[in-house]
Amino acid sequence: MSNEKKKMIVKSKEFSFGTDNEPLELDCGKTLAPVNITYETYGKLNQAKSNAVLILHALTGDAHVAGYHSETDKKPGWWDEMVGAGKAFDTDKYFIVCSNIIGGCTGSTGPRSINPETGKPYNMDFPFITISDMVRAQHRLMQHLEVSRWLSIAGGSMGGMQALQWGVDYPEAVNSVMAIATTTRLSPQSIAFDWVGREAIMSDANWRNGEYTDDLEPDQGLAIARMVGHITYLSDEAMDKKFGRRLQTKTKQSIDFSRNFQVESYLEYQGQQFVERFDANSYLYISRAMDYYDLSKKGDGDLNKSLEKVTSPFLVVSFSSDWLFPKSHSKELVKALRNNNIDATYCDIESSYGHDAFLLEIDTLGKLISGFLASRTDEVNKNVK
Amino acid sequence: MSNEKKKMIVKSKEFSFGTDNEPLELDCGKTLAPVNITYETYGKLNQAKSNAVLILHALTGDAHVAGYHSETDKKPGWWDEMVGAGKAFDTDKYFIVCSNIIGGCTGSTGPRSINPETGKPYNMDFPFITISDMVRAQHRLMQHLEVSRWLSIAGGSMGGMQALQWGVDYPEAVNSVMAIATTTRLSPQSIAFDWVGREAIMSDANWRNGEYTDDLEPDQGLAIARMVGHITYLSDEAMDKKFGRRLQTKTKQSIDFSRNFQVESYLEYQGQQFVERFDANSYLYISRAMDYYDLSKKGDGDLNKSLEKVTSPFLVVSFSSDWLFPKSHSKELVKALRNNNIDATYCDIESSYGHDAFLLEIDTLGKLISGFLASRTDEVNKNVK
Repeated sequence: MSNEKKKMIVKSKEFSFGTDNEPLELDCGKTLAPVNITYETYGKLNQAKSNAVLILHALTGDAHVAGYHSETDKKPGWWDEMVGAGKAFDTDKYFIVCSNIIGGCTGSTGPRSINPETGKPYNMDFPFITISDMVRAQHRLMQHLEVSRWLSIAGGSMGGMQALQWGVDYPEAVNSVMAIATTTRLSPQSIAFDWVGREAIMSDANWRNGEYTDDLEPDQGLAIARMVGHITYLSDEAMDKKFGRRLQTKTKQSIDFSRNFQVESYLEYQGQQFVERFDANSYLYISRAMDYYDLSKKGDGDLNKSLEKVTSPFLVVSFSSDWLFPKSHSKELVKALRNNNIDATYCDIESSYGHDAFLLEIDTLGKLISGFLASRTDEVNKNVK
Repeated sequence: MSNEKKKMIVKSKEFSFGTDNEPLELDCGKTLAPVNITYETYGKLNQAKSNAVLILHALTGDAHVAGYHSETDKKPGWWDEMVGAGKAFDTDKYFIVCSNIIGGCTGSTGPRSINPETGKPYNMDFPFITISDMVRAQHRLMQHLEVSRWLSIAGGSMGGMQALQWGVDYPEAVNSVMAIATTTRLSPQSIAFDWVGREAIMSDANWRNGEYTDDLEPDQGLAIARMVGHITYLSDEAMDKKFGRRLQTKTKQSIDFSRNFQVESYLEYQGQQFVERFDANSYLYISRAMDYYDLSKKGDGDLNKSLEKVTSPFLVVSFSSDWLFPKSHSKELVKALRNNNIDATYCDIESSYGHDAFLLEIDTLGKLISGFLASRTDEVNKNVK
C-alpha cells in the first residue's frame, strides 16, 4: 500500500494579505496589515473541491503538522502519526491544510513581526487577538486556496477552540467539525495556570516589557511557563507511571536543589527545548486569547443560542484523565449541540495520558477520525449525485 | 461557657539548644547549633502531664496557631477556629503546643539565621533538612517542656507528615496521631509543582544564590511560587464557585494582560501578601524537605515495615476534592496501618475546598478531632486508674 517508509517531504508556503486588499479586522477594533500566514498542505484538492480538511494547532504548535521539511530532517511534524498516506487524515484521500495562527512565532504575523508603522517589531504593541481573529485570518487563507467548504475542520486543545469557532462563525463553510480535548471556555483553574506562566515571563528581567533582543530573551520565564504547562498536560497517573518518585542516579540519594527526581529532569528538559523554538511574547498573546475565549459570546452568554446557526455534524472527543480540558466540558458542549438538533457524536476515550492524550492515543483517536471523515465523504458524495 | 468573645492573648516563647548541650543531628550527616525554636502554648499541662497535644504546621505556617499576640492584633493564629476554650482542641482541657519548624522563618533557626562559623546568614550554606530533622528538633522541645508522652500529635499537610514521622520515630512518646490531608510521600505531580516554584525563586535576579539583602528580596519569584501553590490548594470546583470566569470590573471586558479575571486578582493578592511574611530561602528548604519525605524509608522502602513499631491509634482524614494530597494516599496509609494491626480511624470528608479544606471544614473536622481527643483521654485515664 501507500504506507511505505519513504519520508513525506513537505514545504511550508506563505500567503500574505492586507496591503493591496482588506486588512484583517480584529475583535479589539483594530486592524492588522500586512498579515502573513505560513501554511502547509498535504494531498491534493479534488476536482469537486470537496475533500479539503483544515487542521488547527494548539498553543505551541505550528503549520508543520506532518512529514519532514527535508530528507535530512530528523523530527516530523507534530501530528505525523495521524496525517499521511493511509493514516487517519489520509493524504491519499484528503487535501489537508494546516496554518500557523496569527500571533504565533513560526511564520505567521505575530508580536515579533515588523510593525509597518515603526519599522520595528510590534512586541507589546501587537494588538490583542482572539480565537475568532485567528479563524478570520484562516478564512482569508481558505479563499486564497479557493476552497469554498471544508469537508471537516479538526483541532485539539486550542485547535479545538478554533474548530468550534469556525462552526459558529462560518457555518456555510464547514461541512463538519472535530473538537478534540477542548472546551467552549477555560475553567478558572486553567486561567490561573496561564496567569502564573505569564507572570513568570513578565517577571524575567530579560523580558523588558517585551522589548527583548534576540540575543537576550526571557528564557527562564518562558521555561517556567512551559513547565507549568507540561504539568497540566499530563495526568497525575501518567506522571506516576512515567516517573514515579524515581531519582536520576541510582546511587544513594543526595539531597540538594538540583534536578534529582526524574520528573524534575523531564520538566527542565521540556523548558529548555521550548525556549529554543518558541517566542515569549507569542506565548503571552496566545495564552491570553485562550483565557478570553468563550464560545457562548456569540449567543450573548448563552451557549445554546451561540450554536443556533450551526448546521454541520460534530465529533466531540475527550480523554478520561484530561483535567485541563475535562470531559465535563465536552459533555456540556455536546448537550448544547443536541439542544440545537445538531448531529453530535461524542466519545470519551479511556486514557491515562491526561491532556496530552490527543497527541498520543493515535490508534483509538485515529479510528474515530478516519471513520468520521469517511462518513462525511459519503454524505458529500451522496449529495453531489 | 468559656467560649466568650474575649480575645485569647498568647505570647511566643523561645527555646534554644545545641551550644551547651548536644547539637541537633541532621539526616544529611551534619549537625546544627545553636538551634532556636519559637513555640507557643495554650492551656495548662495537668499534674499527670497527660493532656499535652502537639500541633504541627504546614509549609508556610508558624507557631502562632491560635489567639492573638496583643489586644490590638487584628488577625488570629492560623487555626484559631480549632484551638481555644470550647473548641476542638479545647484549651480548657488540653495543653496545646505548636512550634515553628527548623528551616522556617518565623523564629526558629532557618537559612536566614546567623551561621556561627561566619557571623553571617547561612542562606544556601544552611544544611539540607528533612521532616525527620524537624521532628527531632521538636523532640528536644518536648524534653524541655517535660512532657514525656503526647496525648496526641496532630498536623495537616506537611504538618501531617511530621505527625506520621513522630509516630514512627518516637512511638513511645506518642499516644495517638492525627494525620490530616497528608501523605506518606508526595506524588511526582506535587514534586513537579514544587520544582516550578523553586525555579521561579532561583530565577529571580534578586535571589543572587540566596545572598539577597532584606531590602531587595526575590519577591517576584516567591510570589510566583506562592501562586502555583495556591492553585494546587484549591480544587477546580472551589475556584469555579469562588471566581468562575467573572471579571474584576463589571464594565465591558477589556482584553489586556492585567489582572482582569477575579481569579487573577486573587492570585496576585495571595502572592503579594505572602512575600511580606515569608522568606524565599526558607521556601526552598522546606519544600525540598517535603519532596524527599518518604515514610517508607524507615522500612527500607516498605511502608508496612516502617510502621512495625507504631503502637498508637491513628485518626486519618482526607478531603474529597483534595488533589494535592488525594484520598488514595490516605487510604494507602490506613491500609498499611491496619496491616500492622494499628487502630486506624479513617474519614474522607466530602468537601469542595480542595487541600485548603483542612483549614476550612471546621465543623466536621472539629467534631472528629474533639471526639478522638476525648476517646484518647478516656483511654489514658482508664490506664491511670
